[in-house]
Parts: sequence; structure tokens; C-alpha cells
Amino acid sequence: MSTGDALPSTFVPRHVPPGRRTAVLLLTCLDTRGIVAAVAEFLARHGANIVEVDQHTDHHDGMFFQRVEFELDGFALQPSEVLEAFREVSDRFAMQCELRLPEQVARIAVLASKQPHCLLDLLARWRTGELHADLAFVASNHDDHAEACAFFGVPFHHLPVQPDGKGAQEARLAQLVDDAGVDLIVLARYMQVLSEDLVARYPHRVINIHHSLLPAFVGAKPYHQAYERGVKVIGATAHYATAELDQGPIIAQDVARVTHRDSVEDLVARGRDLEALVLARAVRLHLAAKVLVYGNRTVVFG
Amino acid sequence: MSTGDALPSTFVPRHVPPGRRTAVLLLTCLDTRGIVAAVAEFLARHGANIVEVDQHTDHHDGMFFQRVEFELDGFALQPSEVLEAFREVSDRFAMQCELRLPEQVARIAVLASKQPHCLLDLLARWRTGELHADLAFVASNHDDHAEACAFFGVPFHHLPVQPDGKGAQEARLAQLVDDAGVDLIVLARYMQVLSEDLVARYPHRVINIHHSLLPAFVGAKPYHQAYERGVKVIGATAHYATAELDQGPIIAQDVARVTHRDSVEDLVARGRDLEALVLARAVRLHLAAKVLVYGNRTVVFG
Amino acid sequence: MSTGDALPSTFVPRHVPPGRRTAVLLLTCLDTRGIVAAVAEFLARHGANIVEVDQHTDHHDGMFFQRVEFELDGFALQPSEVLEAFREVSDRFAMQCELRLPEQVARIAVLASKQPHCLLDLLARWRTGELHADLAFVASNHDDHAEACAFFGVPFHHLPVQPDGKGAQEARLAQLVDDAGVDLIVLARYMQVLSEDLVARYPHRVINIHHSLLPAFVGAKPYHQAYERGVKVIGATAHYATAELDQGPIIAQDVARVTHRDSVEDLVARGRDLEALVLARAVRLHLAAKVLVYGNRTVVFG
Amino acid sequence: MSTGDALPSTFVPRHVPPGRRTAVLLLTCLDTRGIVAAVAEFLARHGANIVEVDQHTDHHDGMFFQRVEFELDGFALQPSEVLEAFREVSDRFAMQCELRLPEQVARIAVLASKQPHCLLDLLARWRTGELHADLAFVASNHDDHAEACAFFGVPFHHLPVQPDGKGAQEARLAQLVDDAGVDLIVLARYMQVLSEDLVARYPHRVINIHHSLLPAFVGAKPYHQAYERGVKVIGATAHYATAELDQGPIIAQDVARVTHRDSVEDLVARGRDLEALVLARAVRLHLAAKVLVYGNRTVVFG
Repeated sequence: MSTGDALPSTFVPRHVPPGRRTAVLLLTCLDTRGIVAAVAEFLARHGANIVEVDQHTDHHDGMFFQRVEFELDGFALQPSEVLEAFREVSDRFAMQCELRLPEQVARIAVLASKQPHCLLDLLARWRTGELHADLAFVASNHDDHAEACAFFGVPFHHLPVQPDGKGAQEARLAQLVDDAGVDLIVLARYMQVLSEDLVARYPHRVINIHHSLLPAFVGAKPYHQAYERGVKVIGATAHYATAELDQGPIIAQDVARVTHRDSVEDLVARGRDLEALVLARAVRLHLAAKVLVYGNRTVVFG
Repeated sequence: MSTGDALPSTFVPRHVPPGRRTAVLLLTCLDTRGIVAAVAEFLARHGANIVEVDQHTDHHDGMFFQRVEFELDGFALQPSEVLEAFREVSDRFAMQCELRLPEQVARIAVLASKQPHCLLDLLARWRTGELHADLAFVASNHDDHAEACAFFGVPFHHLPVQPDGKGAQEARLAQLVDDAGVDLIVLARYMQVLSEDLVARYPHRVINIHHSLLPAFVGAKPYHQAYERGVKVIGATAHYATAELDQGPIIAQDVARVTHRDSVEDLVARGRDLEALVLARAVRLHLAAKVLVYGNRTVVFG
Repeated sequence: MSTGDALPSTFVPRHVPPGRRTAVLLLTCLDTRGIVAAVAEFLARHGANIVEVDQHTDHHDGMFFQRVEFELDGFALQPSEVLEAFREVSDRFAMQCELRLPEQVARIAVLASKQPHCLLDLLARWRTGELHADLAFVASNHDDHAEACAFFGVPFHHLPVQPDGKGAQEARLAQLVDDAGVDLIVLARYMQVLSEDLVARYPHRVINIHHSLLPAFVGAKPYHQAYERGVKVIGATAHYATAELDQGPIIAQDVARVTHRDSVEDLVARGRDLEALVLARAVRLHLAAKVLVYGNRTVVFG
Repeated sequence: MSTGDALPSTFVPRHVPPGRRTAVLLLTCLDTRGIVAAVAEFLARHGANIVEVDQHTDHHDGMFFQRVEFELDGFALQPSEVLEAFREVSDRFAMQCELRLPEQVARIAVLASKQPHCLLDLLARWRTGELHADLAFVASNHDDHAEACAFFGVPFHHLPVQPDGKGAQEARLAQLVDDAGVDLIVLARYMQVLSEDLVARYPHRVINIHHSLLPAFVGAKPYHQAYERGVKVIGATAHYATAELDQGPIIAQDVARVTHRDSVEDLVARGRDLEALVLARAVRLHLAAKVLVYGNRTVVFG
């Protein structure tokens, strides 16, 4: 933990996989012959023991996606040499490559507004060791969550939005994110729209959560609209934020059944439970390097 | 069965509840004091044994909904007298009332186009006795399903749409519906838009099924759009058709999970299974007089 | 809140329904004619405005169940007089009756062991106002959760089990429960078996949560057994504790899908999410007086 | 189709993948270094274009599973030569290998008893092209389904069980299976127990469906028992039959929610829908060579 506090005993220590140090290669390229063999041969030649391979060919678009997790013990290359040496393969197939090393523990910033449900859920999962990441800080345009963050041992920043525009607020936020070396921004029901600039600086590294209703209801008070139509199912969607905030690639979704007996307030309450669960699932998948993005779509090796 | 055919032995006889003849009263009115007592007192005074009561108060809109099922054995009134006698209650509370009697077996017309999945599912459920209704006929703008209907013992009408417009076709359809005394029209993936006139003549008596995707995708090829966005959940919605065809009150919905491994064709295939199941569920609920409509919303006593 | 602490601002004030004071009658008796009318007439005669009625007739066993919620404003009887006055009805039908008044805020004791997930979830829901109850105390056979309870403002009691048997520990627990006037005991993954005596003193007022696997796996390490069989679905069940601890009436259940990619640890983690959600749902239903028990079965007016 | 009948136009022609002829290799062995590379190198060397790879490492048991689908066009080996040539790899890693060629269209026998729901569902899916297989015949210990099979164009065999034991009946069944060169036996609610001998002759080639209840209820009338306990979820499990009939490796499972309003008959009806869906899903997965069995567990590359 970043704060150095003693861990309250409610929380078990974070999970450390027993003795195994693994790296993950995420590869995306046009589908063609020989990719699988070339990657496998490269790793075998340098002594890598492959722990897990997931791959997917999108025949519709002719794209190839692969996630290879391999042990670093016995591997002949130093972590810093891997991508350079792998260029014999990646250049040949014009691959997009990403390497995740066990030393690189992701640093997360969580942004929240007034609603606590997603934030509290993430804080509890982090302290019980479910999220393999450093929680750099929590920031909010309100000051409601200062005590909760103190209890969980996470720095809290109150970033109020000034009447003269939110430019200054977002500049301060961006500075905090930069200073902390943040790898992932989690919007835990953060009700401020991030600027395109900020989102663009963190491509596929800003995760947002929002309700998903069948059919879709646009505009204000979506749960009220859903109630007026008598929907029988409500849902939540976690996705990467893009310039069109709620239209980015979907990472995780889930649903719950409702009936006419559920008031608008009930729909909102069940929506909260879904939002917290689905957001946590998406963050876990991202941290485990199990999500590849192509176009506006994800491949999730869940 | 309306056709008088011998039942193929694949099909068990239709379920007849053992010896009990029950009627159903469906009531809708503004919520106020004393409704429950007045209805119960009326029925008790005439010797009705109440078998099942469901009711719901919508506090948001101040509306009251009730479904009362009671035995006709021992009941002092003749079926033809009930609504008249009940006016002492219904007038007092300005109720909308509907009475369903066991003699009134609903007559269904099923409309289909090329796709067989919803039609076959309904036919099989009808012949195995799951749908307590007479299946008056199946009509289609194509002639693909003539043999299937013959096998299941249901009249089939081929109503091709002529190049000079569909007015004549729909007139023929309306005539068939009228002649057969149809109570419920089921659109089993019928790909022709019904005219507002026809829909208006069967208020809350035309049930339609369509896909439900999260988020909603409008326009052509919705499953392709959902695939492009990488959705993780697909769904189907059965609803009453209104002038805005796909915007009517929702009766039933269900969902299934999908992943990036599902091709567009897989999404379509899973969508078919959902559509058949959800449509059958909605038809069953309607036939059992378990659906009340208020505004654009249903109360489903499922 | 019982503790009088200032509420950390992460938590919103507990929901108070706007201005409406309602009481709930829960009725169980043999099904016969006239029950609905008699109850409705009694309430109407004393000026009650019925807010919600749910009822169910079990035709198989010939039993009748009803939940009536009515406003106390305008009601002619004092709360203390209701059950006595209602004897004209309840005696006639040999009813089991229960009356819940708005003044009677339930007092809950939560018992936990080492695992924090259900406890933390309940504490957060309580502080955000989702559980309409007083949280009297948390007790545990371990001392891990003292700090979490302090943060949430709930008294914590460490009740270690001594090597010479758990009789003394349970006696102390029973004393705490008595002293605090507890109405509901929630076993939030409490890994000690309660004695039959203690359970018998709280009929249908001890709620337990446990995993539910398809098919059932008995004995130690159920998730390991489920993994060995390759189950594709896991579940959780919340129920009232009875002398046969895990065989009591079921209040709520839910399920999640898993695949061969889920390790035993993944199954356990998903099981934790399910357990917390299902336990909270059961507690909410119980507090809202929406659960009636008959035999080993519940009627849940959810 | 085996019968050569003209296809009733309700049914679309069976799906033929456009122009692509692919083979599938299914591999199981102890996990060790170099497997992925060796398989990929072998296929690349012989000019195979890999279309899809799925693999899974069970770290708990140290087992490796792989499914490789590759195009036969451009592949240097004749289908008959593949396994022999592949011995350089399979011997080295002591692999269990299976090769599925596009010419090998599976031949299915479906066994049913009185209940038609699973049988009708399979017949409709087969005729609409969803099941890529020849339906060799349907057999039943009752004669109820003769007409349905005639309509769908599938040979039907009535195999009544004689009072003097079922040995003769099963011998006749085994003969039919042998004569027809059956690859897969589907027990579509076949209520006769297959002998261990017959099951042993078709290892992982007999698929059975049965209800799955939470918790499990053993003995007669399981839905009645579930009803008595007030379950809120019911399920169905499709699995390979083994000597212990209902204890074999699980291929697919699904669930549905129920309430106290569902009578035993409702539970049974919803169970039917689940059984038909889950059985069809399992058969589709098996036919697509997406199921590997290890011990009593499956790896399903769904």
C-alpha cells in the first residue's frame, strides 16, 4: 500500500501468487498464416514457459488477438530486452504489442462525486486484496468521502468545481494524475464530464460505469423513463471512456430483473448494486491485462 | 382444438384444471380508501370463493390495480349478470373493469414471415397444451409455413404483399381476423408493419416480439451494430403493439450473455432462442389475464 | 443510529418515507371463503387506508397468506389496540397474526468470523440508509473486525471460543443478544454452529447465508468439489436458520455463471460477491416484513 | 439429410460455411514447456492456416488442453496422414489426440420417452440447420413420437420394454446404433437407464439432460421437494453419461428464477424450457468439437 499504514485486521493481505513471476504479452495484428507459430517459437527459443494463452480471430474484420502469459524464471531475456528482441516477430506481422511485467503494479486514481456505492465497493475490494494495484488517490468534486478514504488509508483530494468553469478543476486533477504516475482512472459514478483532452491522454485507461436500460432511454432521469415504460430488466455497463463519453468499448455488463412492484427508488437501488459489481469486474479484468481493444470493441479473455 | 383432428400422440391433451371453473376480474382505478373492502365485500355477499388476488398500488401515479380470480361454483350471479351487478362498486370508484370467464377460450391468430422459430415454438406449445387458447389460424406474407401448419393441424393463409402496396393484403388479413372472431394477434417475427388502423382496432391485443440490445441500436442490422460495439448481453422484449410499433407496454423481457467469441450469426441464433421464449411467456401471461395496462406500462401479476 | 456519532458524510441520511406512517399485518391461515372480505372490511370500518396488499393462496396445502400495509394516519385504533380488536377476524379464521408498527425499528446483531465480505457489505448498506434498522452490535469469535466496526460506528464484541468448549462463548452471546433487545440475528459468514437452543429462541429471526452449488456438494471444501465436477453455475442461498442449520426456509437465492477458466480461487471470489448480495437482499426483505414462513417454505412478497 | 425428402419450406437449408474446409485437432497432455510452439511449428511447416486456437492450462492438475482449428486448403498433408505425421509431436508430449474432419458429419441417435419437449426442440433445430449432423434415427420405449418424426423426416423406432426385463430392448437399441454408425447418442428425457455396457461403449458420446435444483433433492419427485423447500431458482444440467448416470462431466447448465407463486406444475413447465435449451446447447458444443473431457470435468471452449 502506498500509505504505509498498518492494515486493519478486517483486511487480509493482498494476494501474492506463490513464487511465480509472470509477464503478459498482448498482441493485435491482421490475421494471416504463421502468427501463432512465430510467437510460440520466439518464446520457446528464449526459454519461456507459457502459462496461459488466449487468442481470438475476428473473421469478420480479419483481425488476430492474443494474450500470452509466461514465466520469467528461466526466461533468457531481461524484461527490458523483451520488446526489442520481439521486433523480429512484431515487425513481420505489423503487430501492436504491449508487455506487462509483474513489477509494474498499476497505480489507480478513483474519481467520485456524491454517491458512495461504487467508491466504497472498490475501497473494500482493494483493502481485502482483490485488486492487484496501488490506489494512488481518490478525488471528488465534493468532500463527502474524506473520512471513508482516511479509514481505508487512501489519500483524498477535494476538487470543487468553481462557478467560473471547471477548467481549473480539471487542470488540478490532471496535475494530480500526472504527479502520481497514474495508469488507470476509474470513474466511480463521477458526475463531471472529463474533457476530451484528458480522456485522449489516457486511451483505454479510463473506465466508466453507467446504467444500461432495455430499451435505451436518453436524456434526464433514465430510471424514471424506464419505470414509465415498465421495463422488466435493468443493467449496468462498464466501458472505456472515449471522446463520446458513453459510447466507448464495452468491458463488462450485467443485468437484474425487476417488476412493476419496484418503485423508481427500487430501480435506482438495484442499479447501484449492479453498477458496483460491474465496475469492479471491469477494473479486475483490466488489471489482469485481459482486455484488448479493437476499433470500438473489446476482446475480453475473462 | 378447433380443427377436430386426431391429436398426434406426441402431444398430451390440453390441461384442464381439475373441476374448478373460475372467473377473473381485472380492475383499474384511481387509488383511494375502501376499494379492497368494497370489492371483497361484493364478492363475499354473492358467495364467491376468492382463489387468488393480486393487486398493486402505484403510489407515484396514484393508481390502483387488482386481479381477482374467484370460483363460479357457489357464486350467486350468472356470468352475464356480474358486470351489471358490480356497477355498484365500479361506478363508485370509476373503475375500468374486465371480466374473463372460463367459457371464453381466447382465439389466437399468429402472423409470421420467413423465420420459423417463434411460430414453431408457439405451435408446439399449443399442441402440447401449454397455451390455453384456440389457434384460429396462421397467416404469412410468405408460403413457407404451410406444411408445418398442416402437421400441427392449424389453418394456414398465405397473404402475399402485392407490388402495388400492402393495402389489399392487410384488408384480407383484417377480414380473416374478423371472420374468425380473433381475440389476440401474435406477431411471431412478422416483418410487415401493421397499419395504425388495424392496431387501433385491437388495443392491447396485439403482441409483438423484438430484440433488445444494451445499449439500444437503431436502424438496420441491429445485431451487427451490437457486435461492432462488443456487447456482452443481448435480450428480447415482448410488448403490446401500439401505433408506435416497438414502443408499446412491455409484457416480458429476458437476456443472455455473449462474448467476443460469438459471431454476428451466433448473436442472431441466441436472439432467436430468446425471442421464442419471451414471446411464449408473454402470450401465456396475456391468456391467463395476468397483464393490466396503464399508460404505456404494464402491471404483470406473473 | 444507536451510537449518536456524527455521520461521516460518505453516508447519506437514512431514508424516511415522506410523511407516511404505515403498519403491516402479516396473516396466515387455512384457506376458506370470506377471508379477504373480512380483513378488508375490518380495516375499512376503522378508517385504514390500505397502501399495499399482497396475498397468496397455496392450493396444494390449502393455505392463505396475506400482507396488508395500511396508513396509521386516520386509523381509528391505537397501535396497541389493533391486534385485540382484530381478534373478531383472526379468531374466526384461526389466523396467525403479526403486526409491525413504524415505531418498531428492528434491532440487528451481526455475527461474523474471519471473512469480512458480508459484514462490510452490511455495514456500508446500513450507513448509507439501505437497511431500515438499528445495528445493535457486531460480534465475532475473532477480533479482526474491531476497527471496521469502529469506523462504521457500531459496537464490536470479541467472543473468542475457549478450548474447553463453546458453551461459555454462546452464553455470553445470548446475554448480549438479550441485553440489546435484538430482533434479528444475521449470520454474516459466522463459522460457528449456533446451538439448537439459541436458534429455537429466535424462530425465523436468524438469517444465514451459504453457497449453493449445482449439483449439491456435501462435506468439506465444496468449491473444490464443484471445480472438480466442472460446474458452470454457482449460487448462494439465504435462509432462516433452523435446528438443521442449512435446511431452513429459503428467503433469497442468486446465481452466477463460471467456466473452466475459473480457478477454485475464482469460484470462491465470485461466491463471496453472491453471498454478500443475497444476504443483504434477504435482510432487506425480512426488515420490510415481506417474508412469511409456512412449514419449511417461505412466501416472499418481494 | 438421411431421408432424401424434400425439405418443408418452413426450414431453411442447413448452414454450410462459405468455402472454408477446416479440421479440428483436440489435444490433452501434461503441461510442460514447448507444447504450444511444437504444435504451431508443425502446422506452420505443413502450410496450415490456423483459424482458431483455444487452450487452457489447469495449473491445479498440471494439465494442458488445446483445440486448434485450421484450414485444409493449402495444407500439405492428406487428412488420412495427419495423425501419423503429428506423432512427432504427440509422442513427445504423450498427448491424447483427436482429429475432426469436415467430411465426418456426426450421426446422431435421439432417445426419448413420453415427454416431447426436448425431442421436438432438437428436431426443429436440426431441420432449420442449427445442428450440423445427420439425424440417424429417433428411438423410444413408447410409440408417441412416430408422427412427429415422420413430419420432420426422421426414421422412428419403437422399442418397447418387455415385462421380462429390458435386456432384449437394449440389445435391439445397441444393434440399431451400431447399424447406423452412430457417433452421438442424445438422451432427450429418455427415462430408461442405459446399461453400463452400452454407456461404456460410447465414452463421452452419450449426452444426458436432467434438472438441477438448489440445493439438490434426491429421490422421487424432485420438483415437489424443491417446491416444499421454497426454492427461488431452478436449473438444468447437460452432461456426458457415465456409469454413474447423473454424475458425469458437465457440458452446459442454465437456471431460471421462480417464486412462491409458481406451483409445482409451473416449476415443471419452466424446467422443460430449461431442459430443451440446455440440451440443445450441449449438443451444439459437442458437434463443434468444443468440449474436452478430463477426469470428471470438461473444458468447454464455448
